[in-house]
Amino acid sequence: MLKALIDLNEIVTLKGAHSKEGRHLVADDLSIIKDGAIVYDESKILWVGETTRLPEQYRNLAQSMKGHVLTPEVVDSHTHIVFGGDRAQEYADRLNGVSYEEIAKRGGGILYTMKQTNEASQEELFQTACERIERLHSYGIGTIEIKSGYGLNFEKEFEVTLLIDRLKKKYAPRIQIFNTYLAAHDVPKSFQSSADYMAKVVIPLLEKLAPLKVIDAVDIFHEKNYFTADDVELLFNKAQSLGIACKTHADELNDNDGAALAIKHGALSADHLLKISSSGIKALAGSQTVATLLPGTAFFLGKPLAPGRALLDGGAKVAIASDYNPGSCHCDNVLLVASMSAAQLKLNQAELWSGITLNASAALGFKNQGAIIPGMKPRFSLFKTESLSHITYNWGRNFAVSLP
Amino acid sequence: MLKALIDLNEIVTLKGAHSKEGRHLVADDLSIIKDGAIVYDESKILWVGETTRLPEQYRNLAQSMKGHVLTPEVVDSHTHIVFGGDRAQEYADRLNGVSYEEIAKRGGGILYTMKQTNEASQEELFQTACERIERLHSYGIGTIEIKSGYGLNFEKEFEVTLLIDRLKKKYAPRIQIFNTYLAAHDVPKSFQSSADYMAKVVIPLLEKLAPLKVIDAVDIFHEKNYFTADDVELLFNKAQSLGIACKTHADELNDNDGAALAIKHGALSADHLLKISSSGIKALAGSQTVATLLPGTAFFLGKPLAPGRALLDGGAKVAIASDYNPGSCHCDNVLLVASMSAAQLKLNQAELWSGITLNASAALGFKNQGAIIPGMKPRFSLFKTESLSHITYNWGRNFAVSLP
Repeated sequence: MLKALIDLNEIVTLKGAHSKEGRHLVADDLSIIKDGAIVYDESKILWVGETTRLPEQYRNLAQSMKGHVLTPEVVDSHTHIVFGGDRAQEYADRLNGVSYEEIAKRGGGILYTMKQTNEASQEELFQTACERIERLHSYGIGTIEIKSGYGLNFEKEFEVTLLIDRLKKKYAPRIQIFNTYLAAHDVPKSFQSSADYMAKVVIPLLEKLAPLKVIDAVDIFHEKNYFTADDVELLFNKAQSLGIACKTHADELNDNDGAALAIKHGALSADHLLKISSSGIKALAGSQTVATLLPGTAFFLGKPLAPGRALLDGGAKVAIASDYNPGSCHCDNVLLVASMSAAQLKLNQAELWSGITLNASAALGFKNQGAIIPGMKPRFSLFKTESLSHITYNWGRNFAVSLP
Repeated sequence: MLKALIDLNEIVTLKGAHSKEGRHLVADDLSIIKDGAIVYDESKILWVGETTRLPEQYRNLAQSMKGHVLTPEVVDSHTHIVFGGDRAQEYADRLNGVSYEEIAKRGGGILYTMKQTNEASQEELFQTACERIERLHSYGIGTIEIKSGYGLNFEKEFEVTLLIDRLKKKYAPRIQIFNTYLAAHDVPKSFQSSADYMAKVVIPLLEKLAPLKVIDAVDIFHEKNYFTADDVELLFNKAQSLGIACKTHADELNDNDGAALAIKHGALSADHLLKISSSGIKALAGSQTVATLLPGTAFFLGKPLAPGRALLDGGAKVAIASDYNPGSCHCDNVLLVASMSAAQLKLNQAELWSGITLNASAALGFKNQGAIIPGMKPRFSLFKTESLSHITYNWGRNFAVSLP
């Protein structure tokens, strides 16, 4: 059905950012239309411009949206939303100075979430995931990447990937879900080595799931004491042979040339990057792989932020995501995270908004959203406020409203 | 009227922190009572303990609060809530790399807010302040310090101080407002020097307002190019002669021995402290003056945080406040700011919660609130969640509910 919205205070088209592929952005690349109008149907944007120039044939459809701002849809391109239990106690213990070793000894950390996830019924996991998804959507987030990875055994990882697919079908098209296979999130103690776990779980389960066409990308925690470069090669080669895209957790705890390996396999994104080297930055800048920053996690763990400015200045395509998960970043609002880290990361407004729209879409391989340009998908976020600046100027307030 | 609440998942009494005067806190100083009960009337707390031990005579009053956590009232001890206009455009310009000089040239900065405040009617200022106060209260904040300081001339500063008094009377006792006189916030260009402005506005207006008994404390922006140590001495001596407490903006942009000067005059608090020296830290640690951190402002401006850990380890009484204002920190939720900076500042849970309750009360000279101990004022915050940890573990979510 055709819709025409008029009198929007601002339409933030990001046309300039789109033409530059999300790199080397200046403020003008927001390409804001004041007093804007837009015409779209279910599948695409038909017309965008100033309200006074709305073509005659759409005028009878026009709905006034005075006092609102329209942006490309806000995307959270890195979340771990499906989990059992929570880790509030571990969070408090960490603030109170309990060491990681001690937390692990007490049965904490990701293996605690693995236990809670395995003990939860499928219905419990589905319901808590639905609550979380609805909450994200209430902030104006319309596309959500969700990773598996707290089952950590063949049966539960299988179940969780299908559960994410169930979520995807339930919410489409209002909320678009991207299903990332992260069985390689940690190596359970019952396996001899990461290679052993790859051989017995990660690879055979991927082979089993691939024909079901439910996986949008694979991902792996490429870090010392977790998964090696060899494990990454094995997974990415297998995924590529199956026609599945690749993403990676790279260079978070150590610089292990994770970004370079991601680029070699044409990964959609390399995420975290707290410890990325200058050669890694250079490699990302020259590639199509999106550099995804997760500043909430650095805040949550009390670490320095990733070198976002160096990545941006180098020319990398930079996205910002929440990393929403029960352990290392229990913040579900990527808009809040982006707002509160923008000055620390020295982002301009075009970098900030491209980071959670255009470039976050690219981190999921969606080339046809993230800007408001005729022909592109009609995926928007709508905010009841005067101007784009007000959205991130008001920390902790939510201006998102539903499209009419 | 007597009230008795029972079955509270946790009552966070801060009894331990109270006995240590808010210094050198360990996690146990939260002094949490599980499955707690409390009895209080309008003026004081009568009994606190485990629900099973509730004295017989209160049992017929008991209301079950299962699934809730009770804490000492959250206090925001540093805000600039009364202002006209906003500075969203300036915020965006700053992100976009426009220099302070350029912003000043365009008529931005505090002088812009001065203009907007002077142009606003008293009713407009009152209504926008009410909206802001109600919003803070919705986050669970029950005591709010409000500074004047955007009038910056005799007539408007007079009007704003009386307006804050009107707010105080409107909201008491549900919301407790503390009226801080900050006519010495900046020196308008029409004055020759800070001394000239002190002599013509700050001091005579204080003399005029003092007999009205509306001012709870004076404050001053003690910084190079703003107000000198001599100005501070003049104001604090005058305030002390009038029996009015002192607070100060100290050592934010430069180390100017602001903390030491505050201590010399027995100031309630020295706020900001980004650039405080080690001797300043030592002086605060040995004093009754509260060190108030405003981490939101550092985030908002992209600066390093104040040396919170050194202040805490030294033994200073440390509070955390929002600094909510239109220019340098447009975040109105001190609980969010405290949550998002806790790991960066390496705060334990007792330091975090004392910082926004017990020590924030001390920063306003309120000795009789900030802990849940019989005899103290019945000022609480109530949260609908399982445990204290959950409140700050869930960034950006609001669990506050009204007392029954």
